[in-house]
Amino acid sequence: MKLRRSERMVVISNYLINNPYQLTSLNTFAQKYEAAKSSISEDIAIIKKAFAHADIGHIKTITGANGGVVFTPTISNDEARTVAQELCQRLAESNRILPGGYIYLSDLLSTPSILKNIGRIIANAFKDEKIDAVMTVATKGVPLANAVANILNVPFVIVRRDLKITEGSTVSVNYASGSSDRIEKMFLSKRSLNPNSCVLIVDDFLKGGGTISGMVSLLSEFDSQLVGVAVFADNAQEKREGISYKSLLTVTNIDVKESKVDVKLGNIFSK
Amino acid sequence: MKLRRSERMVVISNYLINNPYQLTSLNTFAQKYEAAKSSISEDIAIIKKAFAHADIGHIKTITGANGGVVFTPTISNDEARTVAQELCQRLAESNRILPGGYIYLSDLLSTPSILKNIGRIIANAFKDEKIDAVMTVATKGVPLANAVANILNVPFVIVRRDLKITEGSTVSVNYASGSSDRIEKMFLSKRSLNPNSCVLIVDDFLKGGGTISGMVSLLSEFDSQLVGVAVFADNAQEKREGISYKSLLTVTNIDVKESKVDVKLGNIFSK
Repeated sequence: MKLRRSERMVVISNYLINNPYQLTSLNTFAQKYEAAKSSISEDIAIIKKAFAHADIGHIKTITGANGGVVFTPTISNDEARTVAQELCQRLAESNRILPGGYIYLSDLLSTPSILKNIGRIIANAFKDEKIDAVMTVATKGVPLANAVANILNVPFVIVRRDLKITEGSTVSVNYASGSSDRIEKMFLSKRSLNPNSCVLIVDDFLKGGGTISGMVSLLSEFDSQLVGVAVFADNAQEKREGISYKSLLTVTNIDVKESKVDVKLGNIFSK
Repeated sequence: MKLRRSERMVVISNYLINNPYQLTSLNTFAQKYEAAKSSISEDIAIIKKAFAHADIGHIKTITGANGGVVFTPTISNDEARTVAQELCQRLAESNRILPGGYIYLSDLLSTPSILKNIGRIIANAFKDEKIDAVMTVATKGVPLANAVANILNVPFVIVRRDLKITEGSTVSVNYASGSSDRIEKMFLSKRSLNPNSCVLIVDDFLKGGGTISGMVSLLSEFDSQLVGVAVFADNAQEKREGISYKSLLTVTNIDVKESKVDVKLGNIFSK
């Protein structure tokens, strides 16, 4: 496919945006678009500037025989804060409070434009880490893990609270559910995670931390390492021990009587 | 932010790719990038050509006071077939067969690059329809629905097989599960779907069709209309009545003894 330079730049940008964290040699582009490697190199230089100016991401050029370019998506601090401030307002809407003091989140966590931005913010916070997979627990964590995995371009694994025949052999661990002392089980398909994987855990709402602790103990069953924990929102009123995490939003108070939720930016924004 | 023309084109392409099916006025770009509307118009013309040449998608220009541009992602028939052929091979891998004749799919349905392409193929098959939401059933359908919803830029709704306190009030229907005559319940949060929505149902594996029928009856409970049904794979050996659907792949035979799965391209590719 032979294209004009301006068209070629549009098409190469599209490729990089859709293939983050992946090394692509300049020869691949040169062959695909029937252009000299030197022209591709100039295209990339312009795309790199444009991506940097608009805070779309960083393009790294690796020289040598096995070289090429790698695109790392980023998000500016300003844009991330604007996104999170808007989510604070959405979360504070009075009609979100459910009986029992729960907050309805499903609408936010099933809107692609919102998920994409949450994914960008969480992935950006871990962009310097080696990550092989994103782990979450079914069901509400799935779209979030998916969004983060899309940006990091790694698979995600879904821990389940029930046994499913379509998952094959599983490994299970016990965990303390909720603020109560109930012990429950969680399951992960044996073939869903390779040994020695570096794993980022992602979940929707952090309360007591039992679910996260359960997933961490699953990691050791799979001889894998925890890179970090990221949640959409945490509840500041819960007591929890020994879990280090990053949150987009922090719920500081839930007043069921007055149907009022207080929300502030999470610790992902603190220095 | 003032950019050179070439950089501006890269940044505008990125915007369109991330905001499909959304009308954006040329003035928005003109103001953001401090350029004349006529220059933006020329940029768009070049991007449009590039997107068409590389089968990335179609840019529609709407003139008039409320005009602007709308990007509709597409996938060429060739690329779609190549993607599906590769998935046929992956699905036919002998180690996928689980006891009971189930096929392990979770690895495919949790890899972003694969999901993105499946989303493109399914969305492309329904790109001329008005779609307000994508519906699926937890858990395995979620990443698929998410992928399709990302391309169509609409929310997705998750039907559950269990009642969750975090979903608020729900509507439930009964459905016939599996090939057996067991009757089970499925639930959808009342506030997750607006009345009069046009809905595309997406699921991973179509067997008897009980789950799909359940979701269709939920739609009428929400005064909503079915646009169509799309599945990752269907089983040609199952008898089912009255369900019209599009599938990426069709499993024609599962031989548990020989650990052999026969797979061909699904009916989404037939004329």
